[in-house]
Amino acid sequence: MGGYIKRMETVPKQEIESRVRNFQVRLQEMGLEGAFILQNVDLYYFAGTIQSSVLFIPCQDDPVLIVQKAFERARHESPLKHIIPASGRGQIKKALKEFGFLNFRRIGLEMDVLPVNLFSRYRQTFPEFEWSDISDAVLRLRMIKSPYEVEQIRRAAEILHKGYMEIKEIIREGMTELEVDGHLAFIARREGHMGVLRMRAWNQEMTHAHVLSGGNGAIPSFLDSPHGGRGNTPAMAQGASFRRIEKNEPIGIDYGVGVNGYVADQFRTLVVGDLPDELKRAHDFSVEIHSLFVEEAKPGISCAELYRIVLKKVQRTGLKAYFNGYGEGKARFIGHGLGLEIDEYPILTLRFDQRLEPGMVIALEPMFVFPDRGILGLEDDYLVTATGVERLTITDQTVLKL
Amino acid sequence: MGGYIKRMETVPKQEIESRVRNFQVRLQEMGLEGAFILQNVDLYYFAGTIQSSVLFIPCQDDPVLIVQKAFERARHESPLKHIIPASGRGQIKKALKEFGFLNFRRIGLEMDVLPVNLFSRYRQTFPEFEWSDISDAVLRLRMIKSPYEVEQIRRAAEILHKGYMEIKEIIREGMTELEVDGHLAFIARREGHMGVLRMRAWNQEMTHAHVLSGGNGAIPSFLDSPHGGRGNTPAMAQGASFRRIEKNEPIGIDYGVGVNGYVADQFRTLVVGDLPDELKRAHDFSVEIHSLFVEEAKPGISCAELYRIVLKKVQRTGLKAYFNGYGEGKARFIGHGLGLEIDEYPILTLRFDQRLEPGMVIALEPMFVFPDRGILGLEDDYLVTATGVERLTITDQTVLKL
Repeated sequence: MGGYIKRMETVPKQEIESRVRNFQVRLQEMGLEGAFILQNVDLYYFAGTIQSSVLFIPCQDDPVLIVQKAFERARHESPLKHIIPASGRGQIKKALKEFGFLNFRRIGLEMDVLPVNLFSRYRQTFPEFEWSDISDAVLRLRMIKSPYEVEQIRRAAEILHKGYMEIKEIIREGMTELEVDGHLAFIARREGHMGVLRMRAWNQEMTHAHVLSGGNGAIPSFLDSPHGGRGNTPAMAQGASFRRIEKNEPIGIDYGVGVNGYVADQFRTLVVGDLPDELKRAHDFSVEIHSLFVEEAKPGISCAELYRIVLKKVQRTGLKAYFNGYGEGKARFIGHGLGLEIDEYPILTLRFDQRLEPGMVIALEPMFVFPDRGILGLEDDYLVTATGVERLTITDQTVLKL
Repeated sequence: MGGYIKRMETVPKQEIESRVRNFQVRLQEMGLEGAFILQNVDLYYFAGTIQSSVLFIPCQDDPVLIVQKAFERARHESPLKHIIPASGRGQIKKALKEFGFLNFRRIGLEMDVLPVNLFSRYRQTFPEFEWSDISDAVLRLRMIKSPYEVEQIRRAAEILHKGYMEIKEIIREGMTELEVDGHLAFIARREGHMGVLRMRAWNQEMTHAHVLSGGNGAIPSFLDSPHGGRGNTPAMAQGASFRRIEKNEPIGIDYGVGVNGYVADQFRTLVVGDLPDELKRAHDFSVEIHSLFVEEAKPGISCAELYRIVLKKVQRTGLKAYFNGYGEGKARFIGHGLGLEIDEYPILTLRFDQRLEPGMVIALEPMFVFPDRGILGLEDDYLVTATGVERLTITDQTVLKL
């Protein structure tokens, strides 16, 4: 087994060390003596592994990773110093005692994702602890990406670009959206997409791609997004359907892949033939919004302010009703953070007054949705740098003609 | 929009009505006056839609579906009588008041999946309610499938069969596991797989297929399953990797797809060339275990007893150490229920003393894992009938030779 695992790209030790250190500063500011990290994505962030395990991070000293399964694998994957095998919550308590953490009282948990019953069991096992929610602290830490993290997103963006270039050659009139979706899945996996796209918000689920042709692109869904799509069953009411692609209609493709946990997320509009002028103008306007964003986005400006600037530009046109969804499908944000989950901080919306900081990665998605006609626009991922933003996605910002 | 949605296969009205009625009996037995249904899968089960919404089921009278997004779509998808638009928890309270449910006190919630913070908000909105966990009641109800539900699983099993037949023609020496995985994804989507496979247990995640060649098949993962696989990153440490397929080694493929929410789950062993005799014997023994199961499984026998019968047979051979995982990778169950989620009741394990009942659907997965050599066996899905079991998966129970 060792051989296979050793050839894996594990998270560098310095990454893990600096994340833990930054989190410990936050714990101290919050007056907490330690925190359990239990959710897969957060575990991966702080331990470099998502083997079935419990991570305890004290507000100082080294964290302890207590592994239920698979222990040897966790040891290969995680650079943490203290990794011990265990089964059951009794052993977790024993481990905390051994490391001298049982005299603690004020302990954090990821209460935005932790199920009620699991929380109850922790309360029973540790009746002496007082519990606080650390999810916002974790998310704000994860909001600022290191160069290593940005590099993984760049690699994911390269796969997306390859996918768009290949699918351009594959799509033809009469093909079903589901076939196009399937080809995109094939390309993603062949190139090393990790096989899942994670969302943090409860009950939010996404298929790896949305292929939205013609009127299908205008159908809203339960997803908190400007696009939804019909899907092919009410059991997963979004994305591709058996609808066949026609000439001269927009084919909106939202495509996401992950490399070493980090997701790139891109939307392009394609067409067999030509788009009607009105729809073409909407797409051009989406490109203009991207240019405006590149001009205005720099450290110090707030997300709410960026949202207002974009909305002001939209309101000067006749396109306002169609912007980022139509009717009840309208989304109240124009972009979102991107990293180990698709729905990370910051959110480009009126209610989010966080200022941009270097290291944030933001997917900007100004879309236009026309009832019965479809969806147009483009989504690109940007890194906030010391002086502005840099585009991480690399595909041309044009309508891709087939 | 109506046109697209109307062509969708929605859940029949009688299905929803009988599910709600059965649940109401359970609520009354539990002394509860009503329950909120919030999680996507349970929403789909009781309402026929997973539009972003809150379902309230009183212990008698009609349920109320309160829809945040997308309202029109929920109305097309769900056969429920009372469907009302709303935004925010204030509106939920208002709706409950209108329908006369605000004088209730003892209310159920799905506490096995509900996040702590969301529960806190419900407690704030409804300070007068006393809360109980209804997750076990929901899962035991969902354990017994109707003919409609079994039909959906049959349709999913047909897609799996098509997938195995096609992939037999595609796999060749030197191909990476990820390419094979990609081809399986393409076939699944082209045929109408809904695009997600859902697991209920927290932190359990699955890629749509596990392609496990040679030694990769023996690598355990965080998944509660006899197989795991290397994956291609510690961020999703399971399933296919960049390993290239070699001659004369087992290629274990676990493949799952969903139709209208319902999942079929199958495992087959493939080989380019020939398997070594010892591994061939292990595969033959897996087939024998399936025959034994078909003989013994009938209404009235308990899951624990079935587990013991199979284990007794395994213990008479030299294969015990390799059965359903090796070392810490060993799984403590030989099968699991299947439906809207992959990890449903019943579980074929010592600790689960539920007796078989007509309408249960069970995936039986006797596997053999040989360190550094790989995984062999087969998984098939069975329906418990009035007199025994009927196989729903249709692929031959042989090693598929390429």
